[in-house]
Amino acid sequence: MTSLDTLTINSDRLRSDFDALAEIGKTRGGGISRLALSTADIEARSWFADRIEDAGLFLRDDDVGNVSGVLFSSQKNARTLLVGSHLDSVPNGGRYDGAVGVLAGLEVLRIVKEAGLELPVHLEVIDFTDEEGTWQSLFGSMGLVGHLSAAHFSDMIDDRGPFRAALKRAGIHPNDYLKARRDPATIAAYLELHIEQGRQLYDAAIDIGVVTRIIGRTTYQLTFLGEAGHSGTTRPENRRDALKGASDFILQAFDLVEAEFPLGTFNCGNINVLPGAYNIIPREARLTVECRHPDKARLRDLEAAIVRLAQDCASKHNLHLKTHHFVHMPAAEMDDSIINTIQEVCDKLHYSHVPMISYAGHDAQIMSTITPSGMIFIPVVEGISHNPKEYAEWDDVVKGANVLLHTVLAIALREGTPEQISYKRS
Amino acid sequence: MTSLDTLTINSDRLRSDFDALAEIGKTRGGGISRLALSTADIEARSWFADRIEDAGLFLRDDDVGNVSGVLFSSQKNARTLLVGSHLDSVPNGGRYDGAVGVLAGLEVLRIVKEAGLELPVHLEVIDFTDEEGTWQSLFGSMGLVGHLSAAHFSDMIDDRGPFRAALKRAGIHPNDYLKARRDPATIAAYLELHIEQGRQLYDAAIDIGVVTRIIGRTTYQLTFLGEAGHSGTTRPENRRDALKGASDFILQAFDLVEAEFPLGTFNCGNINVLPGAYNIIPREARLTVECRHPDKARLRDLEAAIVRLAQDCASKHNLHLKTHHFVHMPAAEMDDSIINTIQEVCDKLHYSHVPMISYAGHDAQIMSTITPSGMIFIPVVEGISHNPKEYAEWDDVVKGANVLLHTVLAIALREGTPEQISYKRS
Repeated sequence: MTSLDTLTINSDRLRSDFDALAEIGKTRGGGISRLALSTADIEARSWFADRIEDAGLFLRDDDVGNVSGVLFSSQKNARTLLVGSHLDSVPNGGRYDGAVGVLAGLEVLRIVKEAGLELPVHLEVIDFTDEEGTWQSLFGSMGLVGHLSAAHFSDMIDDRGPFRAALKRAGIHPNDYLKARRDPATIAAYLELHIEQGRQLYDAAIDIGVVTRIIGRTTYQLTFLGEAGHSGTTRPENRRDALKGASDFILQAFDLVEAEFPLGTFNCGNINVLPGAYNIIPREARLTVECRHPDKARLRDLEAAIVRLAQDCASKHNLHLKTHHFVHMPAAEMDDSIINTIQEVCDKLHYSHVPMISYAGHDAQIMSTITPSGMIFIPVVEGISHNPKEYAEWDDVVKGANVLLHTVLAIALREGTPEQISYKRS
Repeated sequence: MTSLDTLTINSDRLRSDFDALAEIGKTRGGGISRLALSTADIEARSWFADRIEDAGLFLRDDDVGNVSGVLFSSQKNARTLLVGSHLDSVPNGGRYDGAVGVLAGLEVLRIVKEAGLELPVHLEVIDFTDEEGTWQSLFGSMGLVGHLSAAHFSDMIDDRGPFRAALKRAGIHPNDYLKARRDPATIAAYLELHIEQGRQLYDAAIDIGVVTRIIGRTTYQLTFLGEAGHSGTTRPENRRDALKGASDFILQAFDLVEAEFPLGTFNCGNINVLPGAYNIIPREARLTVECRHPDKARLRDLEAAIVRLAQDCASKHNLHLKTHHFVHMPAAEMDDSIINTIQEVCDKLHYSHVPMISYAGHDAQIMSTITPSGMIFIPVVEGISHNPKEYAEWDDVVKGANVLLHTVLAIALREGTPEQISYKRS
């Protein structure tokens, strides 16, 4: 087993992949725009497919556009150990978000293949479609686990014609999405390496974050409805100012979350005011609101408390309230056994580590609904992400990739007896 | 003088004008869209010009598009007594706002002409261009008093090309605006009849409001600048949320005005948030803010207090603040002698009346900078204005027109000796 323990990923090759990928969809400020299904995203998938074939891996794609490379086990009835992340980005985002996980996964498969290891699992590195939600957040992993429905493609709530057109342009047929679903019995586990996107590891100078759970989130639209009126001549007691009510709600919502949901977050990312003239009292204020909480039940409580608060603020300001629910994505637990394995690997490699909650969403939260899943976080400078300034020290990327490699090997070990892992130099 | 006292306006003829005008630019909900310089506005001016000529008055227009009808005095060196308002409207506004003042003015001139009165003043009824501010609020009256400058037509702050094009389309040459200025020495006074646009008269069931002053207003843009960040992973102490700071400001601004400026008003009519995504902390919130106060000095104080408050809120939330000043329109005092005259006329006609502040802007506030001015308000049902539901009882319109008629006669009397007012039936 000593020889397994000394395996390390090839830092230069990983770096060369990283730099090549960072050219695709690069923006002037050093950032990345690879919106899902865009020309840049399609180019990145194509580049990734070439790397898979260069590595002598089996190239696979499915009916929701996920692209993967497979290193088959020769064992009968072997299950698949998936590793991956996503190659798409937010507009003018960073080079590390998603890319690190996919490229490190590819590197792990190359190392295992080159070492001639015969594992009792198929290894598969996967690039999930549209993690960032250009069209449908976590689309690829949702398709793989079977969480998509016709509603995701239909025009029931809004016009999804452009989404269907973008899928078709990328060679994905919206009607075939059910074929992308995989039988959970065929999957051993899912592992994802990712930058933290917060500053916990960076501030504490810790090498690795071992994710214990991924925060759940709920997003909705709250519309406060009042009455338009002349800004000068309407007496204060007759004002029904939708923006004033909305402002009261926003401020109180932060206080509520801080006081009653210390692990939760609240964000109001946008507000639209009608009619919008300087001299007319706002008759409508439409807010885009998001709540996150790492605990499933508490997220439900938080969501209910926020809507109650909005109703109270509407009453207080003599307004009506309309709510429209977009997404409820429950919190996800990472697998205890995988958490332990990652911690053991870190200890063996002498990397400092800390258990942590992911306050961002990831494909791992979807995968965890059908298979034991785990996530490995690495520090990102000053916690900056979704930003051209996003930057991770290369040493940290390499450390993360090595943790991924040895976690893959340890999980593979559990799938069969140690004897089944044998050297078979090609 | 008994015969003068018994003069009344012709209610049926005024009504017929009112109904005909309400057809021009009428909207489906019974409202009016006659945006300044629009096809509907141009049609209304043309209709008004026809009425002026039908009445045998002298048709006049000037270089900022004001259209007026003049009944000349035969007296040497007679000054002009102006009466009027505006025929333009806000989008989907009401039928009474502006229209009542212009049509009643026309009716006053017809009555004086038909009665064969020889007055020591020229009487002029005027329709001011763009009172409502489609392009430049109070444009026509500002042109008449000489308050316009090249900046009102140039592209220094924003693109005023469309405004210049609209002026030209209406036959107004932007470069000639200085020619519209009139010598104050030629003007005796300005009188304007208008609906109240508030509910003070309506609630108290009072016939006539005698305006003592017109509120001043100041409008500006306040931009709170923070930093975009991931809504889930950014810790509360690191958030620099522009919308949260703006919300705090909006709420406190209302409290500040209520506590320290009881005669003032505050309105935030619009807010634009960037980047505007549900999962990104707002980096920018741009607010359109307006303050009004009937006292010149206090308006300055209010404006300063609001900007100070915005700065305090920016500091508190770790934001920056940018201010951009649009308009400062000082409060205007109506002429004491005209106020007294209107009150005496009401008493003579047995109409109840009350002194009041106008919380809306009017051409009279501009005219008051060069000539003694007065305003006569009539009730509007439930105070509703700038709305298709705007409605005034016809009896109230007629009462207002009669107050205007007798105020005109009383002011004319002061211009010469009573002997100079003689009957000269045509």
